[in-house]
Amino acid sequence: MKLIEENQLILIICRGRKYLKRITPDQSFHGKGGMLRYCDLIGKPYGIRIGEYDIFEPTMEDIVMYALKRETQIVFPKESFYIAFHLSLKKGSKVLEVGTGSAATTYIFSHAVGPEGLVVSYEQEERHFRNAKRNIERFGEWDNVELHNEEFTGCAVDDFDAAFIDVREPWTVLEKVRGHLKGSAPIGMIVPTANQISEVLKELETGYGDTEVLEILIRKYKTVAERVRPNDRMIAHTGYLVFTRKLETVSTA
Amino acid sequence: MKLIEENQLILIICRGRKYLKRITPDQSFHGKGGMLRYCDLIGKPYGIRIGEYDIFEPTMEDIVMYALKRETQIVFPKESFYIAFHLSLKKGSKVLEVGTGSAATTYIFSHAVGPEGLVVSYEQEERHFRNAKRNIERFGEWDNVELHNEEFTGCAVDDFDAAFIDVREPWTVLEKVRGHLKGSAPIGMIVPTANQISEVLKELETGYGDTEVLEILIRKYKTVAERVRPNDRMIAHTGYLVFTRKLETVSTA
Amino acid sequence: MKLIEENQLILIICRGRKYLKRITPDQSFHGKGGMLRYCDLIGKPYGIRIGEYDIFEPTMEDIVMYALKRETQIVFPKESFYIAFHLSLKKGSKVLEVGTGSAATTYIFSHAVGPEGLVVSYEQEERHFRNAKRNIERFGEWDNVELHNEEFTGCAVDDFDAAFIDVREPWTVLEKVRGHLKGSAPIGMIVPTANQISEVLKELETGYGDTEVLEILIRKYKTVAERVRPNDRMIAHTGYLVFTRKLETVSTA
Amino acid sequence: MKLIEENQLILIICRGRKYLKRITPDQSFHGKGGMLRYCDLIGKPYGIRIGEYDIFEPTMEDIVMYALKRETQIVFPKESFYIAFHLSLKKGSKVLEVGTGSAATTYIFSHAVGPEGLVVSYEQEERHFRNAKRNIERFGEWDNVELHNEEFTGCAVDDFDAAFIDVREPWTVLEKVRGHLKGSAPIGMIVPTANQISEVLKELETGYGDTEVLEILIRKYKTVAERVRPNDRMIAHTGYLVFTRKLETVSTA
Repeated sequence: MKLIEENQLILIICRGRKYLKRITPDQSFHGKGGMLRYCDLIGKPYGIRIGEYDIFEPTMEDIVMYALKRETQIVFPKESFYIAFHLSLKKGSKVLEVGTGSAATTYIFSHAVGPEGLVVSYEQEERHFRNAKRNIERFGEWDNVELHNEEFTGCAVDDFDAAFIDVREPWTVLEKVRGHLKGSAPIGMIVPTANQISEVLKELETGYGDTEVLEILIRKYKTVAERVRPNDRMIAHTGYLVFTRKLETVSTA
Repeated sequence: MKLIEENQLILIICRGRKYLKRITPDQSFHGKGGMLRYCDLIGKPYGIRIGEYDIFEPTMEDIVMYALKRETQIVFPKESFYIAFHLSLKKGSKVLEVGTGSAATTYIFSHAVGPEGLVVSYEQEERHFRNAKRNIERFGEWDNVELHNEEFTGCAVDDFDAAFIDVREPWTVLEKVRGHLKGSAPIGMIVPTANQISEVLKELETGYGDTEVLEILIRKYKTVAERVRPNDRMIAHTGYLVFTRKLETVSTA
Repeated sequence: MKLIEENQLILIICRGRKYLKRITPDQSFHGKGGMLRYCDLIGKPYGIRIGEYDIFEPTMEDIVMYALKRETQIVFPKESFYIAFHLSLKKGSKVLEVGTGSAATTYIFSHAVGPEGLVVSYEQEERHFRNAKRNIERFGEWDNVELHNEEFTGCAVDDFDAAFIDVREPWTVLEKVRGHLKGSAPIGMIVPTANQISEVLKELETGYGDTEVLEILIRKYKTVAERVRPNDRMIAHTGYLVFTRKLETVSTA
Repeated sequence: MKLIEENQLILIICRGRKYLKRITPDQSFHGKGGMLRYCDLIGKPYGIRIGEYDIFEPTMEDIVMYALKRETQIVFPKESFYIAFHLSLKKGSKVLEVGTGSAATTYIFSHAVGPEGLVVSYEQEERHFRNAKRNIERFGEWDNVELHNEEFTGCAVDDFDAAFIDVREPWTVLEKVRGHLKGSAPIGMIVPTANQISEVLKELETGYGDTEVLEILIRKYKTVAERVRPNDRMIAHTGYLVFTRKLETVSTA
């Protein structure tokens, strides 16, 4: 049984709100349920209700949503979970990311490829790079992430298993990315507007195959047994996902 | 560069349709693009267009969709990708599954936990169990899956990191599952009807926290740059997902 | 050309917000665009931009959304527009409504059936009845609405063309409503929860046909030509609509 | 009580399928429920079940869906119902339509404006015009529709209350339409692609206000009380709706 220890992360839920905190023995949490002293939690198991507080071990999604510091619009779990598997990331995969942002996808990719894998990520903006670096240092679990503070113009690795591009104009970087992928490698992109879908699709006409465009919608429900119904409001748009795979036309002669 | 070899799997796309095949040197694929001899592919890289055929290395999603033999309604990738990460499965996790079905989620979970992890899955129906076993033997990549052909009434492992239940009446098995989870462990369930959501929620009133109900919708778009628009039809319902976490009320005295 | 006159309604839009006002010569509108004197508008046409203010003639939807005083959750236009036509309301139709609420559907029905038609509506709650009455008196255009402040237990009209029920437990009133409809008459209901759908469906097993359950979702987009994309958030649920038609089994002997 | 008579329309439902027929005494319907002789129906009320056949009086929606002959992609009721009310069509309104198509919206508009109203509709394509004409002659209820077999380049009426445009490039005709509308008049358009939304929005920058872009989704549910759940598949896209209103900038001097 895993017990709460000093320096570990906990998720606190009180009256439907979530807080992600690190256990420091001399500090406390002050919420609507009164004072919660962290030293009282040390040595107790995760998954406990104390007064109005529910204390859980954070999941990867909790980390992304409540721990990572955001300096950019992040790719949300509903998309990053899908992207990681749709790109077929598995133990040992090497994936290239262009546009680290706040490292939210970087963090998920790091888990998807595991300690034997590799995530190489480029971020041009120094401020975002520094924030991403700190996020990965504080919350990353595996030592498999390489962050670069530069525009992606090429790199040492030549046979990435997959790539993900999250920059404003993915069509400008696509060809450079393609050059560092192995044959058949899946490529993912996220764009907020339909105009950008159109621009990307033009670039994919040659050298790519199995192109797909989609969006993912999550509809949440209230959790009252006698009144099963969707929440009144939902997130209606985060981004359009574009997927393709590297393809080479070979002569049949 | 990875080359196509005997006995490997390939994904063939022709005129928008997908076929997943295993390379056997003396056989051929006969589709609308004419005959494609497998022996001509051996030694070539993945990611090639030959005539009307695009040949790719299958992704995990391709395996689930086009390789696994289905004897049951499967949990589709749009849900299983989300479930695996939402349950916080990572390299080394141990996960319990009740209701193996055709092993589609089992296969995804196996990849999520990696070779150091463990997936223990129960299937009561012998016919489904045998099909699931064959699917995992033929397509599984890691030796980390334990399949049981019996009703789940308990098991040797006591501290699973997470659980997933896919049976008709998940509320009947929930308490037994809970007993084999470590504190805070996330539990996922999938049910097709709103009536079942209601039944599950009643069972979750005590001993569980952070309960969520949601559904995932994927909307696909046509891939013509000049005419960006959704497909005419979409899959509107596969199942409702219910998530919760094991919670113990502790006395504060 | 219709000109703005004293006592008429105008819709003012300023910085994306909408206001519905009645022209009284000695008053003014004070918004973020500065003071707008109503006397300056009199004699001008509708559809004019004055400074930051856009002045339009209110549509029926504007009346429902911004003029009717709400004492209850109203049925929104996206549903009431559909209901009115799906119930096949047309010039001269007679429709029965049980549950007037704030008279938002009553108002739409009144327009759908026109001056030769009839809307008979029942509201048990005196407070809601009084509010509904005032709404219809102030904003109704045709003298074709009969409001009753009582529980519906029957009425003088025996051959309504259609009915709409918006009460918490529509199944308790359904049989009484049915008795006052002509054969084949469509009946509509709105319920917020899936549990209620289930209850209604049980009641519809005998004496009704062509039953349908559906929900209507409206997804709005930003209106920037260079950045076509859905709004970030949307209304995800207002209610489930249940439709059926009165059916009598006749002997074929 | 309305009885079935010779030459009237009936809706037949058998095993979930719908058929719209006209009563001719010497004919019969042959479906999966056996032979149904129309002469046996004459004199009976609407809303009856005879064997496996449910016989209803057709609603306006039934007419649009099952009676109108389609030579073009029609605007479906889920959109046309919304459009008619969103354009604030009411008894006596005059509405201009550009692009009659199969007259499905024309038919709905005709009912919305009633016999005192007017629908003026233009269709360039002779084949579509002839089909639309026949549809209106056979199924229209009011003598309030004027069909023109020509490109819209202007017309005699100068103060339409509203307009609807359903042609491939609505931006090319928008200005001409605007010239025939009264101030503040709402204008609706339907376009299948996001690229077209972008083109329309560019044209709306001057001379229009209160612009909106939206799409309407209908999700249907199975009608089994014990298993409340959405249908497996749904129509995911018919068209994007663009609405705006005529606006004149006036000097405040």
